[in-house]
Amino acid sequence: MAVQDEYILVTGGAGYIGSHTVIELINHGYKVIIVDNLCNSCYDAVARVEFIVRKSIKFFKLDLRDKEGLAQIFDTFKIKGVIHFAALKAVGESMKLPLEYYDNNICGTITLLNVMREHRVKTVVFSSSATVYGDATRFDNMIPIPESCPNDPTNPYGKTKYAIENIIKDLHTSDNTWRGAILRYFNPIGAHPSGLLGEDPLGIPNNLLPFLAQVAIGRREKLLVFGDDYDSHDGTPIRDYIHVVDLAKGHIAALNYLNKINNSEGMYREWNLGTGKGSSVFDIYHAFCKEVGKDLPYEVVGRRTGDVLNLTASPNRANSELKWKAELSITDACRDLWKWTIENPFGFQIDNYKWKLFNTLGIMDYKNRLHTICFQDLEVSIANYGALVQAVRYKGRNLVNGFNDFSRYKLKENPFFGATIGRFANRIANGQFEVDGHLYTLCKNENNKTTLHGGNNGFDKQFFLGPIARQYEDYNTLEFILVDKDGNNGFPSDLETLVKYTIKNNSLEIEYKSVIPEYSKLNVTAVNLTNHSYWNLASPNKTIDGTIIKSTTNVYLKVNSETSLPTGDIVEWQNDITKPTKLDPNISFDNCFIVDREASKFCLDTRKYSLKNIVEVIHPSVPVKLVVSTTEPAFQLYTGDGNDICEFQSRSGFCVETGRFINALNNEKWSKQVILRKGEVYGARSKFSLYAQDLEENKHFLDSASYNSGEYY
Amino acid sequence: MAVQDEYILVTGGAGYIGSHTVIELINHGYKVIIVDNLCNSCYDAVARVEFIVRKSIKFFKLDLRDKEGLAQIFDTFKIKGVIHFAALKAVGESMKLPLEYYDNNICGTITLLNVMREHRVKTVVFSSSATVYGDATRFDNMIPIPESCPNDPTNPYGKTKYAIENIIKDLHTSDNTWRGAILRYFNPIGAHPSGLLGEDPLGIPNNLLPFLAQVAIGRREKLLVFGDDYDSHDGTPIRDYIHVVDLAKGHIAALNYLNKINNSEGMYREWNLGTGKGSSVFDIYHAFCKEVGKDLPYEVVGRRTGDVLNLTASPNRANSELKWKAELSITDACRDLWKWTIENPFGFQIDNYKWKLFNTLGIMDYKNRLHTICFQDLEVSIANYGALVQAVRYKGRNLVNGFNDFSRYKLKENPFFGATIGRFANRIANGQFEVDGHLYTLCKNENNKTTLHGGNNGFDKQFFLGPIARQYEDYNTLEFILVDKDGNNGFPSDLETLVKYTIKNNSLEIEYKSVIPEYSKLNVTAVNLTNHSYWNLASPNKTIDGTIIKSTTNVYLKVNSETSLPTGDIVEWQNDITKPTKLDPNISFDNCFIVDREASKFCLDTRKYSLKNIVEVIHPSVPVKLVVSTTEPAFQLYTGDGNDICEFQSRSGFCVETGRFINALNNEKWSKQVILRKGEVYGARSKFSLYAQDLEENKHFLDSASYNSGEYY
Repeated sequence: MAVQDEYILVTGGAGYIGSHTVIELINHGYKVIIVDNLCNSCYDAVARVEFIVRKSIKFFKLDLRDKEGLAQIFDTFKIKGVIHFAALKAVGESMKLPLEYYDNNICGTITLLNVMREHRVKTVVFSSSATVYGDATRFDNMIPIPESCPNDPTNPYGKTKYAIENIIKDLHTSDNTWRGAILRYFNPIGAHPSGLLGEDPLGIPNNLLPFLAQVAIGRREKLLVFGDDYDSHDGTPIRDYIHVVDLAKGHIAALNYLNKINNSEGMYREWNLGTGKGSSVFDIYHAFCKEVGKDLPYEVVGRRTGDVLNLTASPNRANSELKWKAELSITDACRDLWKWTIENPFGFQIDNYKWKLFNTLGIMDYKNRLHTICFQDLEVSIANYGALVQAVRYKGRNLVNGFNDFSRYKLKENPFFGATIGRFANRIANGQFEVDGHLYTLCKNENNKTTLHGGNNGFDKQFFLGPIARQYEDYNTLEFILVDKDGNNGFPSDLETLVKYTIKNNSLEIEYKSVIPEYSKLNVTAVNLTNHSYWNLASPNKTIDGTIIKSTTNVYLKVNSETSLPTGDIVEWQNDITKPTKLDPNISFDNCFIVDREASKFCLDTRKYSLKNIVEVIHPSVPVKLVVSTTEPAFQLYTGDGNDICEFQSRSGFCVETGRFINALNNEKWSKQVILRKGEVYGARSKFSLYAQDLEENKHFLDSASYNSGEYY
Repeated sequence: MAVQDEYILVTGGAGYIGSHTVIELINHGYKVIIVDNLCNSCYDAVARVEFIVRKSIKFFKLDLRDKEGLAQIFDTFKIKGVIHFAALKAVGESMKLPLEYYDNNICGTITLLNVMREHRVKTVVFSSSATVYGDATRFDNMIPIPESCPNDPTNPYGKTKYAIENIIKDLHTSDNTWRGAILRYFNPIGAHPSGLLGEDPLGIPNNLLPFLAQVAIGRREKLLVFGDDYDSHDGTPIRDYIHVVDLAKGHIAALNYLNKINNSEGMYREWNLGTGKGSSVFDIYHAFCKEVGKDLPYEVVGRRTGDVLNLTASPNRANSELKWKAELSITDACRDLWKWTIENPFGFQIDNYKWKLFNTLGIMDYKNRLHTICFQDLEVSIANYGALVQAVRYKGRNLVNGFNDFSRYKLKENPFFGATIGRFANRIANGQFEVDGHLYTLCKNENNKTTLHGGNNGFDKQFFLGPIARQYEDYNTLEFILVDKDGNNGFPSDLETLVKYTIKNNSLEIEYKSVIPEYSKLNVTAVNLTNHSYWNLASPNKTIDGTIIKSTTNVYLKVNSETSLPTGDIVEWQNDITKPTKLDPNISFDNCFIVDREASKFCLDTRKYSLKNIVEVIHPSVPVKLVVSTTEPAFQLYTGDGNDICEFQSRSGFCVETGRFINALNNEKWSKQVILRKGEVYGARSKFSLYAQDLEENKHFLDSASYNSGEYY
């Protein structure tokens, strides 16, 4: 029997601290399941965690109070322990909505503990708060605050944390095999150094640094400093600010600590997670201004009710028992926060971007989503599955073949609709290649002889991680990433591939970047990437016949008619396709045209080259022109003859598959186009530009004898 | 539009304090809905409350955490306020099962408050406990304990009460139109003075008096006194014991107080409910021994951990603000507890008695139950509906016609199977009668001319309250009660009727007692009660033909063949039925036989007379003899000719309907049998005895020429 994977269940794993902790868990070799009701967070944070750790993470959108749903997760997976973040967490809000806080936090926890007990999972790390101490200054000499400081929370939020600590404590008293670690956070700040993950507060931020960050990017006018007449070095109150990554690591320390306890034994223990160093409001203000590079506006106003001079942790217990210590500075936190802020000025969610689950009926699988992003006239929908382009809507008209029903993409008749093709687009003769004296045998998925489009489990059949959606002034981008495993389809080496879609007003640009990651055992592989969108300017429900196509090149790779593989000769096409050519059933293409006979000039990473127009397409009845440009040396022109799937028949769309020469891998002259070694980068760019032009202009296009070569941009 | 009834919802209303509070609520004119999950109580307590208050109470078996179910109640009924008792309540158990306590108590309350808020019900009286104070002796001069004593509960039970107080308090802070009354109980003791209701602890009682009571009736060996070396007058610790009826009244005071607040205003306030007088363990011991009439065994053992000298309430706040004060003494409590204990030595549930819901599919209506009680060879099933006898199983053989499916009893063809017949059994000529010069017109439910069996909404169509089940050495009893409203079917005056079934090894005795209650506006009515069981000794699926019947009387009331009403003549029956008579289709009975020609000797309450045998029945193929005896002057002998309902056809059973003379009401000589005035009692007894006798004895019965008259008992 196979050993079942053991997981750490992270509740609230989509939240600020939860998501950072998931990264640390995965970095420490734990497998993670995230449960989050997303009531105050978004799945995009999880997608970014996956992007950062380059791994898919099991995610369930679930409220902890849904006992049946939760039990199902425990039934399905072997859960070893739980880190429990899920909670509403705003002090002020808790005073306005106490019932929601008590319900969500306490009942959620009780349900969780019940389900854990029913499944004999008795290890829990609980996300508590220094709020349970209340005003520690009510005692003499209680700063820095030790865990022994009596509890007296002063608001519903703090009372829920206090109640939950007690529940876990009483549970341990009743059954001492329970292992409960209570982590009392002080003031978490900062963001992930990648700039991909950080705090994304809804509404007006309650905390100092998120507020300052919004002032820095102009979302808020000025910082309000509540009192500068405290007995501190600069008159502002002192708190213990801790970098969220340090805080996250505290959870790993606590979990490891609990896991070291003998099986039959339990424990219950509280630990402060703080730095032990207090910083004043002005300390933080100055540190952040330094990162931003300018003095931010602020105004000193009166003290806030309930504020006290100093709430600094004594982290001694965690330092000595958990062997954990905060290592990052206020400066680190300010730098990471500023990077997060400028790279994501509106947090995870950007305008003009939305996504939905792209699942077959009844399945709720978050790795399978469909993302729609638009910029003015252009709206593009892209799925995680194959990072495929499901729709390209220009001025409301969809110009590519695609399905609304995900299950159709899984049909074996699917001719790679819109998909990213990799690790190796087009054909590899005999499904094998030799490099450095080693012969690699691949998945021969075409007639049991040839490898087509990377094999049976190509990029088109895998779920890409991400995307990272970003918003810029002139465009928006979506970045997906895929880790194709060493040995998949027979290819050597792990391969990380970034696919970046840039959506402008009238163009969709696709950028590919592949590298063999450091951790890969092997050091070499073969890469050739393209996108397999079927275009149809007139109507996806009709054939492309009547479409007029014009190319900048008329040379192509001659192929052996039996094997469809190149002979090595570069020859002229039978007709001059640099002249407008009207497609009809007698004109079929499935040929690799060569942009430049001097292929030797092409390197592995063509991204630095400027885009060259290669194909220009119109349809007499449609006021749109498509221009395809690329940095690549070749493109397969394909008219989709013989396709037959659902509403799409033969010749429903044509493809312009930019890329390297067919079978370059097995051709001495060409193989440098496609052999990638560790430390090198494979890269490419291709662009599909769309122009509104009226039907008169279309006629002119037909009449034009010559073609204006060169870049549009 | 009719004014909708307003209800007080009582959660945990089947429990010790809840049930006593329901009585006080109803006594104070409130309408009540009880919600209870019965996890630590039983519906029998509710049935007894109904019996005590003579009213049906809406009851829903529901866990408060079932939000949908709870919301449905709030959707259906207009709830004005909630008294919230529902909770697990044992300190020791809470330390063993903390999660169950937190879940049930806190999550239950949160769900309740959520549903209340959604239905804009914002008045709640919460059942808290002095446990929230923890050890008040940790402070100087804190005895008697005021509400201002800081809280510090020391066990999960107390922590749940503390958390809930906080939830209600924070809810009021967030929305000051909430009205929350927190009642902190000290030590509730005693029972309802009726002897019908009291504490029914499962397992070993945790509290002093319930334990003492079990010592008194021999269920426990001796009382353990935990320490006699405290600094009190007798060395035992001092507590504030409060009679449960006083405590219950405190809730009414709090509810009235909240209701007096202006509509737009709210409040949150805690009140101690205690007497302010401390009693030592020995004080209580002596008081209870005095009631029992003997010194009960006890042993002084060591102090219990956590016990302190004195926990006495300061009830000043409740006294002055709620105008409420405990009025009953320790002596009262001991007397009531002792009455409850001796009358219900095993609490609500007795051996050989069980009940189930007797509802039509999909309905969960607790007023409609089927009770089965047995004593050795005899098992009888009786429904609340009509207090009807559904089955009489003697040595496993059912001897009466009855349905397993309740809905069949509601069919219009149902010929009163097993039902209690009232307010007036048999026929009333012209559906009217005159008394004290006033003519009363009744429901003429037979051919629009005559009143039969009390009219369309007779006792047989009403749900009786109760039963009270009691266990004795030689028999068990079930008591039902019905309040038939003034004007129902046209009869004057309210009428309370008790139907008591006594089940012995071989007999079912039915006792009737009716009175016009004090509160009735009118002072006179007419009563004639009987039971309408159809007997069939051979098999309920066959006819009674072949059955042999013998009577002690051969005179009957001659009737007008057209009206079926007596002419006034008492005459001999055509054949001598004092001789064994074998029933066959040609021998039909539907006649009122007279036990004694001298009917004038009969008074309203015949219960004091000894039972006279009236009919003796066997079937040659069945080893059972039925003997019917009564204190009544007459009986209708009926062979069920023409009946046709479901599996029961004509002559499926015969009835011996003991009672008064037909239409006695309209006969000057006989009317004193049936006219009841306020202050008088209508009473009657009838008994169905069963004897095992072998088939040889049956033959002898047939052969016997003479009949041995007289009583069997």
